[in-house]
Amino acid sequence: MDERVREHAEVLVDWSARVDPGDRVVVSVAEDAHDLGVAVAEALGERGAAVTTLYGSEEMTRAYLKAHEDAAGDARGDGFPDPAVDRALFEAADVYLRLGGGRNTAGTADVDGDTRRSYAKARQAVREARMATDWVSTVHPTRSLAQQAGMAYEEYRDFVYDAVLRDWEALAGEMAEMKRILDAGEEVRIHTEREDAPDTDLTMSIAGRTAVNSAASVAYDSHNLPSGEVFTAPYDAEGEIFFDVPMTIDSTRVRNVRLVFEEGEVVDFSAEAGEDALASVLETDPGARRLGELGIGMNRGIDRFTDSILFDEKMGDTVHLAVGRAYDACLPDGEPGNDSAVHVDMISDVSADSILTVDGEVVQRDGTFRWEDGFGN
Amino acid sequence: MDERVREHAEVLVDWSARVDPGDRVVVSVAEDAHDLGVAVAEALGERGAAVTTLYGSEEMTRAYLKAHEDAAGDARGDGFPDPAVDRALFEAADVYLRLGGGRNTAGTADVDGDTRRSYAKARQAVREARMATDWVSTVHPTRSLAQQAGMAYEEYRDFVYDAVLRDWEALAGEMAEMKRILDAGEEVRIHTEREDAPDTDLTMSIAGRTAVNSAASVAYDSHNLPSGEVFTAPYDAEGEIFFDVPMTIDSTRVRNVRLVFEEGEVVDFSAEAGEDALASVLETDPGARRLGELGIGMNRGIDRFTDSILFDEKMGDTVHLAVGRAYDACLPDGEPGNDSAVHVDMISDVSADSILTVDGEVVQRDGTFRWEDGFGN
Repeated sequence: MDERVREHAEVLVDWSARVDPGDRVVVSVAEDAHDLGVAVAEALGERGAAVTTLYGSEEMTRAYLKAHEDAAGDARGDGFPDPAVDRALFEAADVYLRLGGGRNTAGTADVDGDTRRSYAKARQAVREARMATDWVSTVHPTRSLAQQAGMAYEEYRDFVYDAVLRDWEALAGEMAEMKRILDAGEEVRIHTEREDAPDTDLTMSIAGRTAVNSAASVAYDSHNLPSGEVFTAPYDAEGEIFFDVPMTIDSTRVRNVRLVFEEGEVVDFSAEAGEDALASVLETDPGARRLGELGIGMNRGIDRFTDSILFDEKMGDTVHLAVGRAYDACLPDGEPGNDSAVHVDMISDVSADSILTVDGEVVQRDGTFRWEDGFGN
Repeated sequence: MDERVREHAEVLVDWSARVDPGDRVVVSVAEDAHDLGVAVAEALGERGAAVTTLYGSEEMTRAYLKAHEDAAGDARGDGFPDPAVDRALFEAADVYLRLGGGRNTAGTADVDGDTRRSYAKARQAVREARMATDWVSTVHPTRSLAQQAGMAYEEYRDFVYDAVLRDWEALAGEMAEMKRILDAGEEVRIHTEREDAPDTDLTMSIAGRTAVNSAASVAYDSHNLPSGEVFTAPYDAEGEIFFDVPMTIDSTRVRNVRLVFEEGEVVDFSAEAGEDALASVLETDPGARRLGELGIGMNRGIDRFTDSILFDEKMGDTVHLAVGRAYDACLPDGEPGNDSAVHVDMISDVSADSILTVDGEVVQRDGTFRWEDGFGN
């Protein structure tokens, strides 16, 4: 076994999930994540945890849902049965580790949208029980994910392990500095002037909001490995922003999005590809036209975009905004924040000709933070 | 997908497990049983059941147990933690379907025996909760199992589906006839005189005992697919018997076993290979030297021995005896029957030069039952 698989498992179990002896751990293993599953089982055996292993097979899920669709309308009714076993198992669990890495990222592509929604609705209580555990989601590098990223298999393995096998303690410290700045700040401005792209000049308020140090650990209320971003919940955006990082919305490739904000609301938008998908998001509800998140990517182990939000939004030299729902962790107690049925992230490359200021002070210039070497004035 | 995989899933779900709409079904999928898992998920979606999928990975189990061994003795103690999640999930389940079919039948070969026993002991309550469901165990034909059987992959697939895809209703009816004979009978005699093997002439009492029609369905209290045997709990064996079908006891190949019984107890034994393993079984406890089972194989879809007890003991033209523990289902209420920590099956080929009589009447001659064509006098 590649020694990095074992290191990945150790980061997941120790840094991310903080597994203690006696913990009841549920591990879900995707179709091609077996090697990581073996390494995680080994780490959990060493730590003295109890393990229950689920099989996260998208092909089995697809077969179940398609058969349900075909049988719907007959005597047994259209609904899904009570998922009492899944609920019971997550209610009894302390930790949930999801090991992604299937054989086909389009493995459930032909399942009807109504079926998905009805299935998700029937499983609401399962989801809540799962989210009440110390849960962490990661991926094992598979050929399917390499293909999605447009990379060779060995190349993609290097990419994933560079992102996952960080000095998380050090990165968490660096991100704590960014959190302090955002927590104390009142206004953020992103300003980019590049020859090859429309200008960005956007200001937004963050007064009273709390930033989250997303350091890939439940100890930081951060549930993805890799992570490496600091995010907060902005409001009252004014100005315009250009998102040049490719993304996929509801299976549609969307390119070069431009949003114009007035009094916190999107008043104009365009996209060079996928504009209809973007329009559909913005029309979901009133909250879909307002910001839910400002995130600052700080994981320098991620050096390229792979059309996977788990990696893209954490990349150093990027900032991202999401329209739609804000995270509760960023809001003062009792304040509702922006509400919406959607939360769609869009990413800007800020590696060149770009500044990020908080209350007029430059925090990042051309991708370099002010506490890093090479930050000039 | 081979259409037989789908037929296998349908037999399992409908004939064997009798799944109803709304049933909570736990499916355990071995490392190479994914195709059968997909077919079972499809069948369960059609039937309107709820599905929870476990991953039955022997390599993960081995990694967990070996890591536990290596860590034992440190501060956290030697014991296994409470498997509360597994217990909760089986307690919430109606049906458990185990889909065997790993990648290596020796996948846990280097796990220490004490570790296995300690793990099994810690999971006693899980096992009890699992046995309280309508459980069925089957196997998907894999290359690993083909290798164990000494067969080519395609050849082994044909072998498995011939055994599984029977007319179970018809076979259950035929087996009911055998059950009637055994339930009414008081004494069974097996008598074989072949030129190439030691003689068998064994009589045993079955008075007061109840035979089980093991028709591969929970409706018959039968939990393996394939099945196809009728068994009861004999006692007071007298005489000798020769078992010519190869078998494996605790990873040791055992060949050509001869047992001599007096007053129900083994008083002499021999084996051409593996005699020490046989001796070790017989010395376990007093019950290990007495009979726990007489079984009559009636599945004519199984046409050869494959060193897998799931198939071998069900084969038509065979009878088997087990030393050790008797099954409760064969005993009158309140009667203890033979008790032992072991239950080891041994099989005789009765296809030629052989008769099976019950109370002096010939029931099977040279492998042919008296209700079949070709049964002469």
